[in-house]
Amino acid sequence: MEARMAVPPEARTDTPPSFDAAFRAGLEALFAWRRDVRCFHTTPLDEAEYAALLGAACQAPSVGFSQPWRLVRVREGARRAAIRAIFATSNAAALALQADERAGLYARLKLAGLDDAPEHLAVFVEPQPGTGHGLGRATMPETVAYSAVLAIHTLWLAAAARGIGVGWVSILDPQHVVRALDVPAHWQLVGYLCIGFPAEASKVPELERAGWEHRLPLADLLVER
Amino acid sequence: MEARMAVPPEARTDTPPSFDAAFRAGLEALFAWRRDVRCFHTTPLDEAEYAALLGAACQAPSVGFSQPWRLVRVREGARRAAIRAIFATSNAAALALQADERAGLYARLKLAGLDDAPEHLAVFVEPQPGTGHGLGRATMPETVAYSAVLAIHTLWLAAAARGIGVGWVSILDPQHVVRALDVPAHWQLVGYLCIGFPAEASKVPELERAGWEHRLPLADLLVER
Repeated sequence: MEARMAVPPEARTDTPPSFDAAFRAGLEALFAWRRDVRCFHTTPLDEAEYAALLGAACQAPSVGFSQPWRLVRVREGARRAAIRAIFATSNAAALALQADERAGLYARLKLAGLDDAPEHLAVFVEPQPGTGHGLGRATMPETVAYSAVLAIHTLWLAAAARGIGVGWVSILDPQHVVRALDVPAHWQLVGYLCIGFPAEASKVPELERAGWEHRLPLADLLVER
Repeated sequence: MEARMAVPPEARTDTPPSFDAAFRAGLEALFAWRRDVRCFHTTPLDEAEYAALLGAACQAPSVGFSQPWRLVRVREGARRAAIRAIFATSNAAALALQADERAGLYARLKLAGLDDAPEHLAVFVEPQPGTGHGLGRATMPETVAYSAVLAIHTLWLAAAARGIGVGWVSILDPQHVVRALDVPAHWQLVGYLCIGFPAEASKVPELERAGWEHRLPLADLLVER
């Protein structure tokens, strides 16, 4: 601990980058075009590109600098088949909960790119990380899981900037996924990501295109106090 | 619902932007320099800039396109004083939980920019949004709150690209914040944000500079299956 108290002088004297209008316009386009991708080409990702995405994920902020995300790259066919089976079961259960007139649409949305995406990444959270020493999470322990969400989003944006798509699969029984991937039983699933080159691009969310939901005006989401 | 099924043709034919190497380098720098800011100048933000940040937040992905984030701009002095009091109480309780040798450091980290930041934004989640029709959250209802986390992160990055800092305060009793801001009792606090111009910049997280925690190597966070 004490050794880490020494701060390299360059950490204090770094000059922050100045982001120009072109970069900000690009960032705006990135936010607008970053989609939840369901249709992938099967083309594999370059290993260096993939490593860059994992590196970006680890740049995310975390509560107390606890870095509680745990990344599981799922490559084995048997593991992927197990995940696919968990999805099928959970999806059938979810379909049963939907009102009749929506069920058909729901089924057609092709909610998982599990079959085509060349990469599967399961993101878990270590709910009691030794790192961070509990800072910032006494009153809101959910901020630990939120940190893993931030890692996913950072990866997602880094991917989109490279023309790589990410689809977040949440229709999964988290406990079944923990067992299927043989990770520590106390890890909690935050998201299961399909990653690969998207088969189509759109500025409009698939659920909006499909008429599932529309974008809400800011006035509906903002109050002043 | 039916009216929304009509998809404007331009939504299908849009050409996605191609992000170049310069943009990707900028994005990498943005991830590296986006800090959790605690020291702010009191200079107010331009209203148009602030509106752009709120607009960016609403570009975040959300489960089932439910857009469940609820943004509360806190301007009244009495409300801010109430939040400051909740922080003081929660912080004292958190301090009592820390081992002795860390408590002093913890206190010195100046965890809140509550006094100086010109803007306060409380971000809540509507846990049972009518929007999204329950899609994607049957097995993982926490994805609704995660969507609000994604909105915060999108705002945070948009701010950093404008040289504006964000500090996420999580040492707050969420129920007390709900009452202090007089929002619907079932809303859940996700994060309380201080927003303004940072008083210093650094590529290294404040908690790392202070010796609180160090950055973990990817090998500690990644497994293959």
